Amino acid sequence: MENKYIITIARQFGSGGREIGKALADKLQVPFYDKELITMAAKESGMDAEIFEDVDEKATNSLLYSLSMGLYSFGNSFSAMGDLPVNDRLYILQHKIIKKLAENGPCVIVGRCADYILRERDDCVNIFFHADMEYRKRRAVEVRGVDKARAEQVVNKTDKVRANYYSFYSGQKWGFAQNYDLCIDTSKLSSDEIVSLIVKYLELKK
Amino acid sequence: MENKYIITIARQFGSGGREIGKALADKLQVPFYDKELITMAAKESGMDAEIFEDVDEKATNSLLYSLSMGLYSFGNSFSAMGDLPVNDRLYILQHKIIKKLAENGPCVIVGRCADYILRERDDCVNIFFHADMEYRKRRAVEVRGVDKARAEQVVNKTDKVRANYYSFYSGQKWGFAQNYDLCIDTSKLSSDEIVSLIVKYLELKK
Repeated sequence: MENKYIITIARQFGSGGREIGKALADKLQVPFYDKELITMAAKESGMDAEIFEDVDEKATNSLLYSLSMGLYSFGNSFSAMGDLPVNDRLYILQHKIIKKLAENGPCVIVGRCADYILRERDDCVNIFFHADMEYRKRRAVEVRGVDKARAEQVVNKTDKVRANYYSFYSGQKWGFAQNYDLCIDTSKLSSDEIVSLIVKYLELKK
Repeated sequence: MENKYIITIARQFGSGGREIGKALADKLQVPFYDKELITMAAKESGMDAEIFEDVDEKATNSLLYSLSMGLYSFGNSFSAMGDLPVNDRLYILQHKIIKKLAENGPCVIVGRCADYILRERDDCVNIFFHADMEYRKRRAVEVRGVDKARAEQVVNKTDKVRANYYSFYSGQKWGFAQNYDLCIDTSKLSSDEIVSLIVKYLELKK
């Protein structure tokens, strides 16, 4: 189908959001952006992608936190942003990149407050994927290679970090239904079925 | 289509949840329960439906609150529940009725923690409807006859009461995506389109 929308995807860790987003982008034949946004930010800023990977989708909570994490003041390699913590630099860079990508046309963007960053546009469809804990633990182990004994802890901690990140930059609650056009429990349908449901949504919205 | 699921609907005030639920029940040719649950509770208990209407979907916050609202101890007309506040009596009655209705087969049930009450069943589809404030204010005025000047206040207050009710009896957060199988912003599609989307969901889930 021809799709004219920019689809943003927020997702609980282990819900399969990334994989469903990729399958949706393939189905719609539009570009897909997830970790690619880090590489783009690195390229744009001339900084090392590895530095950004460490702080990706993590909020700067305070100056003290930034100092303790060694995130504050990264030399002059990206002087336009002065002494901003790396987290904030990455957010600003990804903010700019996401806006530009949206201007280029339909695509699928995962995470990074894209729904909030693009809130002024009327051609976005914002989706949130979630699933019950057992499902997410199983996927964390099978797909992400997380140690089984630590799976629940990793799932909870990653979600907490994502929620903080979203709340810090958007001022809104992550996972709260009213921030999204559509929220789907990914443990109740297969990936293919979820893609079909979203395609149906896009067809109806036309 | 033939539908084998019990569909529970939670909804922000003014989102059109009741109307969409009714249209969905008609489409699926299954019974629809909303205010009907009050009449049923009145019939079951021998109490006056009007008494229940006042406390429907309202939590008992405390004994003091119950006393101040005149909700505490309602004679012996429903002696099996002793001195329970009317709110709690209604919750218990509706709890029992909702469980029985679900046993009778597929249906659509609006509000009243039905998703939580039926959480042990694996044949439920739990839906949350929400919409932006402007849309809900407009509908509150046009459909519910709310005074325009007070519309935002009424919308916010009704949602707060519903959130308290849900949280009081289920211990969970109302409107939090992970409590539902599907959450839909009703301001982005027409009622017919939302019914079509849910029918698609039910077909996929088969």
